[in-house]
Amino acid sequence: MRRALELAERGPARGVNPRVGCVIISPDGDVLAEGWHRGAGTAHAEVDALSKLAPGAAHGATAVVTLEPCNHVGRTGPCARALVEAGVARVVYAVDDPGPHSAGGARTLSDAGVEVVGGVLADEVEAFLEDWLFAAREGRPRVTVKWASSLDGRVAAADGTSRWITGREARADVHRRRAVADAIAVGTGTVLADDPALTARDDEGALLDDQPVPVVFGRRAIPADAAVLRHPIEPITLAGTELAHDLEELQRRGIRSLFVEGGPTLATAFLAAGLADDLLVYLAPAVIGGPRTAIGDIGVGTIAEAHRFHITELVRLGDDILVVARPDTAAHPETTTRERV
Amino acid sequence: MRRALELAERGPARGVNPRVGCVIISPDGDVLAEGWHRGAGTAHAEVDALSKLAPGAAHGATAVVTLEPCNHVGRTGPCARALVEAGVARVVYAVDDPGPHSAGGARTLSDAGVEVVGGVLADEVEAFLEDWLFAAREGRPRVTVKWASSLDGRVAAADGTSRWITGREARADVHRRRAVADAIAVGTGTVLADDPALTARDDEGALLDDQPVPVVFGRRAIPADAAVLRHPIEPITLAGTELAHDLEELQRRGIRSLFVEGGPTLATAFLAAGLADDLLVYLAPAVIGGPRTAIGDIGVGTIAEAHRFHITELVRLGDDILVVARPDTAAHPETTTRERV
Repeated sequence: MRRALELAERGPARGVNPRVGCVIISPDGDVLAEGWHRGAGTAHAEVDALSKLAPGAAHGATAVVTLEPCNHVGRTGPCARALVEAGVARVVYAVDDPGPHSAGGARTLSDAGVEVVGGVLADEVEAFLEDWLFAAREGRPRVTVKWASSLDGRVAAADGTSRWITGREARADVHRRRAVADAIAVGTGTVLADDPALTARDDEGALLDDQPVPVVFGRRAIPADAAVLRHPIEPITLAGTELAHDLEELQRRGIRSLFVEGGPTLATAFLAAGLADDLLVYLAPAVIGGPRTAIGDIGVGTIAEAHRFHITELVRLGDDILVVARPDTAAHPETTTRERV
Repeated sequence: MRRALELAERGPARGVNPRVGCVIISPDGDVLAEGWHRGAGTAHAEVDALSKLAPGAAHGATAVVTLEPCNHVGRTGPCARALVEAGVARVVYAVDDPGPHSAGGARTLSDAGVEVVGGVLADEVEAFLEDWLFAAREGRPRVTVKWASSLDGRVAAADGTSRWITGREARADVHRRRAVADAIAVGTGTVLADDPALTARDDEGALLDDQPVPVVFGRRAIPADAAVLRHPIEPITLAGTELAHDLEELQRRGIRSLFVEGGPTLATAFLAAGLADDLLVYLAPAVIGGPRTAIGDIGVGTIAEAHRFHITELVRLGDDILVVARPDTAAHPETTTRERV
């Protein structure tokens, strides 16, 4: 299974489909073939592996695959059926397929007399497919809300100046973390105030091949000369008045993870709507005071209504601190603690 | 010197005088006598040690003492003179006496032909006498400003409810840290809102023998039934309109360290005045939003005026975090970093 996971990692980091790996093993324990999924429209991992074998060569073999073989007829045919037809005797997989149309492969296999074992290395594969599984289960992208503030929760001085509250290491960490998201969101206020490019760049500032989709929330117009309009991918603009609806729209467009970059109005809106699945809070050892809070009114009238999280990472970045936290709810069974201090 | 520091630790934790230890060693390296200071009005460490010896027994000996022997005639006579008269040949000490009236002992000893070596184990003794040395050098108590807030810097929900933002471990840590201060300060707003006892109690809630002095800042009257009026020590009340002046008053009353317990108005005032020598910021992984910020307006108009600190400790306390930080200024040469994560 660990080899299957390595194969899965060869797949594309972004896209509507999950990254899946498959190893076909003979009854004697020899590896017969390996396969992985290369993105929507290409063969699924199981079919990719089987395609490398002569007809009948998989007879009696075991297929080890990171995700439950799919059951639906998409562009590539159901994998469960392909495994049965290849004469595979046993299927070992890690994580159940949560898709409403694709689930049920394990049942199809069992019904056809194939021995099926699920849950092998499930925690590791859950962590690897976290965003995709979340999106499949919840029907919306996984949302990370980030802010960078002083110890007293301010993002700017009274006159609006804010460069720089956190240091170089913290800003580089933001860049690394947002670069792995499918999309990066800002509010129109931030477009007007900071004119961000929303591109993923390397250390020399050169554009990376793989870019997150820029998303702009808000009803104010984006200026014609805004940097975000020069992004290699055309920005998605959303009203931001109904975030749950907006997230469904992003899900439809293949976005599985959304990095909410700021500013305070957008971060506050996501928190108020209970749509923050991860908090990234960068804290500088500074005190600023005054009116420019990182988070505004999120509708907490009394202390029992406070939004409670638990810390999953606490990291020192130069002079600053990064706190990563997840909501204290039973709705996030995939939560794992990655303690780093 | 390490033995002298152990002896010093036997002295009282609070009081106007520093805790000092002294060891008298014969020319052959044998310990002849040990002494330590037991508080104002009692013998200084050197005199305490010499008093245990027969006349002439210290002739040619070395005195190892944690603080430069004093030069002034107080209730106990100058120690420098006593060492000379006892015939001590050599004095080894750790830290210079910063007192305007007591300094100069090393010079007195040298002038009398005694060999003098200063600076031995100075860092350890500096750390041990930190508050006392700070107060002697700055002419005011060392101020610790504490607050406990959500990740977004709120101390209460919109309706003012705040119990509990941080958890049990964080609250116990506050209690431990405030118990070692000479005095604990609150504003009248906190007296009216929370009615704190400001006592140091053990785990069972019983009063400890040694209590910090309660200090109440503000111009509003303390209610006759306020818990602070039942404190074993009568509270000191100060207007809080001129904090530098108020701190001088506390210094005159023998207070070397002040723990600013809250609330937001008082913490904000100390920060605005640049009178926070240590920050203790307890952060709960919660988001509250709304109007109840831990720190209000501290007069930072533009980002270059932000009050900058550096983190000296970062500790996880149950679900919460404690950040300890000190001002980024050259005015605090005693700063040492005690890294814990």
